[in-house]
Amino acid sequence: MTRRNAFYAQSGGVTAVINASAAGVIETARAHKARIGRVYAGRNGIIGALTEDLIDTGRERARAIAALKHTPAGAFGSCRYKLKGLDQNRAQYERLIEVLRAHDIGYFFYNGGNDSADTCLKVSQIAQTLGYPLTAVHVPKTVDNDLAVTDNCPGFGSVAKYVATSMREAAFDVASMAKTSTKVFVLEVMGRHAGWITAAVGMAEDAKTPIPLLLLFPEIPFDEAKFVAAIDARVARHGYCCVGVSEGLQDASGKLMAEAGTRDAFGHAQLGGVGPLIANLVKEKLGLKYHWAVADYLQRAARHLASKTDLDQSYAVGKAAVELALAGHNAVMPAIVRVSDKPYRWKIGIAPLTEVANKEKMLPRGFISADGFGITAKARAYLAPLIRGEAPPPYRDGLPQYVRLRNVAVPKKLATAFEV
Amino acid sequence: MTRRNAFYAQSGGVTAVINASAAGVIETARAHKARIGRVYAGRNGIIGALTEDLIDTGRERARAIAALKHTPAGAFGSCRYKLKGLDQNRAQYERLIEVLRAHDIGYFFYNGGNDSADTCLKVSQIAQTLGYPLTAVHVPKTVDNDLAVTDNCPGFGSVAKYVATSMREAAFDVASMAKTSTKVFVLEVMGRHAGWITAAVGMAEDAKTPIPLLLLFPEIPFDEAKFVAAIDARVARHGYCCVGVSEGLQDASGKLMAEAGTRDAFGHAQLGGVGPLIANLVKEKLGLKYHWAVADYLQRAARHLASKTDLDQSYAVGKAAVELALAGHNAVMPAIVRVSDKPYRWKIGIAPLTEVANKEKMLPRGFISADGFGITAKARAYLAPLIRGEAPPPYRDGLPQYVRLRNVAVPKKLATAFEV
Repeated sequence: MTRRNAFYAQSGGVTAVINASAAGVIETARAHKARIGRVYAGRNGIIGALTEDLIDTGRERARAIAALKHTPAGAFGSCRYKLKGLDQNRAQYERLIEVLRAHDIGYFFYNGGNDSADTCLKVSQIAQTLGYPLTAVHVPKTVDNDLAVTDNCPGFGSVAKYVATSMREAAFDVASMAKTSTKVFVLEVMGRHAGWITAAVGMAEDAKTPIPLLLLFPEIPFDEAKFVAAIDARVARHGYCCVGVSEGLQDASGKLMAEAGTRDAFGHAQLGGVGPLIANLVKEKLGLKYHWAVADYLQRAARHLASKTDLDQSYAVGKAAVELALAGHNAVMPAIVRVSDKPYRWKIGIAPLTEVANKEKMLPRGFISADGFGITAKARAYLAPLIRGEAPPPYRDGLPQYVRLRNVAVPKKLATAFEV
Repeated sequence: MTRRNAFYAQSGGVTAVINASAAGVIETARAHKARIGRVYAGRNGIIGALTEDLIDTGRERARAIAALKHTPAGAFGSCRYKLKGLDQNRAQYERLIEVLRAHDIGYFFYNGGNDSADTCLKVSQIAQTLGYPLTAVHVPKTVDNDLAVTDNCPGFGSVAKYVATSMREAAFDVASMAKTSTKVFVLEVMGRHAGWITAAVGMAEDAKTPIPLLLLFPEIPFDEAKFVAAIDARVARHGYCCVGVSEGLQDASGKLMAEAGTRDAFGHAQLGGVGPLIANLVKEKLGLKYHWAVADYLQRAARHLASKTDLDQSYAVGKAAVELALAGHNAVMPAIVRVSDKPYRWKIGIAPLTEVANKEKMLPRGFISADGFGITAKARAYLAPLIRGEAPPPYRDGLPQYVRLRNVAVPKKLATAFEV
């Protein structure tokens, strides 16, 4: 069989465990030296391919690659850069193939979400059109958990564990202060379109650790009067209340609350997101003392609190991507298939990219409680195994030790530059 | 010797490890049954004493008390309630003594910061004046690390570890996104008057993990032009920059930035704190894409990431408080004494409350770098041991298992109610 090189790139917002997928790809490729030569990574994602700025992962020690499993974010750099449609910008795709051809790349691994699944599909199509032999496999990743076909997305379980843990801890704090101080605590979380992360906040409380908790999902239009009444009732009964709010919360007209409420009379954008907005509303309407937190990048970079399930799956999809490619599967994505809930069992399946690209898996209405402020037993059954297990990084002097790769550039072979 | 009961209360903002001090007090008292009868806790701090709302900690199993060591926040409830001066409200102090007398309380343990050290001192004084035999010992606690005499404050090391870890993780995230997306990340941290927590953010980076990082201390008046230039230079050189900002950042006139900049033309308070304000400034002046996070309660409740040093010291000051009381020390506080830096060694000393009450230990100027944006080697030597060591809580189903006590009320003995 021919031996060809591989390309790997990270795309879009990074996660606490995307580097575990990178380790899965690289370590598995290294185990198949007869079929795969070098593994080149795109510096800053697909931009690295377009500009022929490739990283030779072969220059990294095995130990450094293994350390990717406990290092958050994108070790090779990621990017927010969506390739346009084939008709709109065929030149980009042709350039991509030109670079792949120059470096004898026969395997294309793209690690990202919906957009990158679409890019991966298009790359496989243009290669075929141009008669360039290429096997393209998408490696799923997104904290938003909104990829189709796969039961869940690598990256999500760790964010879910982080927001549930953080809310549980903050709730203990508020409960102890509520008598004379803070009565309402608001935590803003990511997930602009789909409320998966918001739902995960709901895992903070359970039968053994009840917490008066309201969730504000992007799927449920914000009803101010109903929300204020719900807060009022919980504070009256429990002395305090916690709120988990999606950054994508919308009003009845479908406008983002964070935008709707944050301009002053001159149209100047006010500062702060929907978290402070909701907290301020509680103060205005009920006169209750509040605190709010916006976790932002902290939630998706928190490798120190990664879910073991998530970590294992992230590595597994990277490994499976290489195995699928070697088995001749093209334009596919390894998907996580849930075999059973109790005990939780999962395996890797194969999803055609045509079924994944540009689709968005929303939180089912059946996961949200009837009043719109909580999660159902069904949601709990789905979420529970995804946050399970701890996988702490090594610590030195009290801080997690994360690896930084050497990221040595591959000498360019093309004379032409390319503007992205 | 006479056997008398003990009173314990938590005061002010809680921490990830204040319950470890409670465990230290209760377990040590239980080990001295010949001298100490029941340990009563104030429900919601000193308010519980004033209203005769006492909790019988004797009703809790040894296992539950031990579990306090891994449970954040205040297990008996805390409060923000400062007793007035003796002249202004003698009735409060007399009521306190009345309650202590009714329950034969001979030991008064008060777990808090500057204010509560003052209260503890006053309680000891009024007891003496009224001829009521009482031994009052303050147990130090504050994330702000601003108590006098003691080398550091229980509660601070864990926040320090949390903010340093979080900033390190976020920096990895930003570094991987900077090419096409976020270039500046701002993390707002606690510490309104003293920049100890801000300094701890600086530990995120070190020789092995360099990060372009700017710190904005409450001690250094904010100089917009200088700050903008510093960001600009770092982004030009490294492609990104991280900023740790104290909630208490002030402008040149001494006004809090969070207040100064957050009113619109009508004087309406805008939402959000100094974190979003600084982030927005970066956008306005340099046109750079930003993200910001406000950790708020997450940082001080994060028991999952507590420092082992901090945990050990928190327990130790609780234990020492009881031992000091039994040895006849009155109106004192167990203080942490640093014996050596390398290796780090500490012991418990004795601080008279007159030297602690109402004093605030500021961050020394020598801990802040000459340019005002970083920390010095001296600061690092001080901070390093405080964040060292991990002490994770037990997890079940992916989440930390924190204890909730039964908190059984002690039957009231007084016929009189008391309004606080």
